[in-house]
Amino acid sequence: MRHPHDPSRYLLARSLSPELVERDDIMEFQLDGTPVGGDDRQPYLERFIHGAIYEARPDVHAVVHAHAEAVLPFTITTRPLQPVIHSGSFMGAHVPVWDIRDEFGDTNLLVANMAQGRDLARCLADNSVALMRGHGFAAAARSLIEVVRMSVYVPRNARALLAASGLGDVKALSRGEIDARAAGYKPNSPETWRAWEYWARRAGCGHLLARRTDKPAKKARR
Amino acid sequence: MRHPHDPSRYLLARSLSPELVERDDIMEFQLDGTPVGGDDRQPYLERFIHGAIYEARPDVHAVVHAHAEAVLPFTITTRPLQPVIHSGSFMGAHVPVWDIRDEFGDTNLLVANMAQGRDLARCLADNSVALMRGHGFAAAARSLIEVVRMSVYVPRNARALLAASGLGDVKALSRGEIDARAAGYKPNSPETWRAWEYWARRAGCGHLLARRTDKPAKKARR
Amino acid sequence: MRHPHDPSRYLLARSLSPELVERDDIMEFQLDGTPVGGDDRQPYLERFIHGAIYEARPDVHAVVHAHAEAVLPFTITTRPLQPVIHSGSFMGAHVPVWDIRDEFGDTNLLVANMAQGRDLARCLADNSVALMRGHGFAAAARSLIEVVRMSVYVPRNARALLAASGLGDVKALSRGEIDARAAGYKPNSPETWRAWEYWARRAGCGHLLARRTDKPAKKARR
Amino acid sequence: MRHPHDPSRYLLARSLSPELVERDDIMEFQLDGTPVGGDDRQPYLERFIHGAIYEARPDVHAVVHAHAEAVLPFTITTRPLQPVIHSGSFMGAHVPVWDIRDEFGDTNLLVANMAQGRDLARCLADNSVALMRGHGFAAAARSLIEVVRMSVYVPRNARALLAASGLGDVKALSRGEIDARAAGYKPNSPETWRAWEYWARRAGCGHLLARRTDKPAKKARR
Repeated sequence: MRHPHDPSRYLLARSLSPELVERDDIMEFQLDGTPVGGDDRQPYLERFIHGAIYEARPDVHAVVHAHAEAVLPFTITTRPLQPVIHSGSFMGAHVPVWDIRDEFGDTNLLVANMAQGRDLARCLADNSVALMRGHGFAAAARSLIEVVRMSVYVPRNARALLAASGLGDVKALSRGEIDARAAGYKPNSPETWRAWEYWARRAGCGHLLARRTDKPAKKARR
Repeated sequence: MRHPHDPSRYLLARSLSPELVERDDIMEFQLDGTPVGGDDRQPYLERFIHGAIYEARPDVHAVVHAHAEAVLPFTITTRPLQPVIHSGSFMGAHVPVWDIRDEFGDTNLLVANMAQGRDLARCLADNSVALMRGHGFAAAARSLIEVVRMSVYVPRNARALLAASGLGDVKALSRGEIDARAAGYKPNSPETWRAWEYWARRAGCGHLLARRTDKPAKKARR
Repeated sequence: MRHPHDPSRYLLARSLSPELVERDDIMEFQLDGTPVGGDDRQPYLERFIHGAIYEARPDVHAVVHAHAEAVLPFTITTRPLQPVIHSGSFMGAHVPVWDIRDEFGDTNLLVANMAQGRDLARCLADNSVALMRGHGFAAAARSLIEVVRMSVYVPRNARALLAASGLGDVKALSRGEIDARAAGYKPNSPETWRAWEYWARRAGCGHLLARRTDKPAKKARR
Repeated sequence: MRHPHDPSRYLLARSLSPELVERDDIMEFQLDGTPVGGDDRQPYLERFIHGAIYEARPDVHAVVHAHAEAVLPFTITTRPLQPVIHSGSFMGAHVPVWDIRDEFGDTNLLVANMAQGRDLARCLADNSVALMRGHGFAAAARSLIEVVRMSVYVPRNARALLAASGLGDVKALSRGEIDARAAGYKPNSPETWRAWEYWARRAGCGHLLARRTDKPAKKARR
């Protein structure tokens, strides 16, 4: 996520399998990907995805890059990934597909420098999600909770769309529905918190939620 | 479920991820969704699904609303979800698809008031399951055990039908088979209890079954 | 399985979810499904599947009936389930589909008496597996280990065939390959035991294998 | 893997379900499959897959044979398995399909002697992966870590390709991309180690990684 006090910096784990990341593994970077304060731990090679999106999109405070298997088919075919289930609305009406080959020719497909990151950010433009051909996706949002949500629901929406594609024409969310859901979203709504609590427990860090203000209130009432 | 002693009320958990619900999380509501007794805990936004169905269907004593992934493709295509496996018979011969957009235009797709709940209940009519376009389904039954069963078997039937659709024409259950299964259903039959016991253990609440009357009998015999 | 000492009897658990069955849950039945020795515990309703096959097939010493999800599509379409992977060879070249409706009209699809069981056994004939329309399958073999193997590999073969069907024409095992595999099968071969050991551990009963004769030998050698 | 000190020998577990293999289960073989040093434990019947590939390919130091379900559809249809996701690049541009029936007629499909192993190795030729019709695949690489990687990503690539095939024409990796990824691969790169560490933990042997040289360095810095 973008540094909460300094918009010219962002936070990201050192190069480590996400399941193993602990609090102490978080590093701080300048937008160009340089570690802050001489931190010489190994950073993720593809951190430029994050920095380039923060650079291009001041409204974005959290970015996720993932290889979720369910989205891969939509990165290598011309079938557009579009929101068809309500929880998928946050990907927006248009999900562009970025092909690193268009600008950089034959590469190892990894986003290994700021030029590549910026090209991806240009493709993302004002959208929330960009698919990356043969690789995965990048999603950008106003908050950490929103990119986590997209990490869960973009693949889920992709699975529903893939399955439905075998059954015939698909009825997607309308533009009005996508807008209505975006307008009604509140980062601290009970619905948002309910999912956040569940995901945190699934991820093994439910204990970090204990200091949430609505918990003491609940305990006091009982 | 509908309140066992007062048909004008129903029981539903406070807004909480289902996996985390404990006994003390159950709230009591009037059919219009008003919490009983000044309970000020956060209720589910979509509780109107439940109240509107109880209101329209005196025969119904339990309702489930879910987003089961396997049914989603049938909510966004014109392919009807029909029972094709014996355990899916309880969804009935006809499974209507409710599209909130038909009556309410562009919304966030959530059933957020009684007017929307009643429209869904009208679509459900005398059937057991209504699909909700781009969202999930609602199922209604005479008992808790029956809606739990539909929560398990409606998605299972959907997966079987989806897979079979890729292989050619599908032989569905006949109306006579659906009726024969419904006629033969007994909520306390050994077959029903066998599954109930298994699901309770899978859900981590097998200990709640210990007081069942057939258990002491079995222990006594050994 | 058929009773090891009395071919006119068979062993089957009392009506209980398979995952919960323990040694003491095994009951003894006559081939017509009557419990032996006045055992008044609740038997499986569908035990007639087992008895009718033992009655018709003296070569069969173990029977399994299951609802494995992967085979269901092949029970409701005209696409034949055929062996396409080596581990699926034991289902044989021909897998008939039994439709209870052909002989008994509209039923609840359950095999609830010997007449229905015998009709299923007639459909099975000399084959190893019969699919049951909209329901599942029954498999018959010379030993317990062989029906367990079919319980694992018949669904796996079905999944491979289903997936391959979307890619084009499928190359099945030849009759000669099916025969070669059947001819080479030895119930106590290292390959058979290797899988048996793995399945037993997965099923939580690996401790029952400790008395196997090759274990002491192995320990002695080290 | 090939013996690190004697290229005419290789290491492979005794016949045991892979999940159960421990350090003491590793045996040593000559390339023709003869156990070294009179080890009379039961070897894998199909060890000839390994020996024949080591014999034909001096560049290969590790071989894996597996039945991964996701690749099976590509072994029984004419649809080629090709790399479509970046992590699948290591299978190479061409993945031949070996059919034991072509040379050996009707068999039990197992690679049970050196003649069959050598025929498979001929089909593999200079490629990294050979599919085995109705059976699985064999993969060859310069190191253990690389065959483990293929064990993870070849099936993953197969699943992505299978799903994409239902959506329309598929954009595969270009030859240049495959080459670029192969050229950039370093067995001790942070990216390689990151995955290795994750897989080791998933496999329950993360403790074996503790002696890795970059770990003490990290501890020293903190």
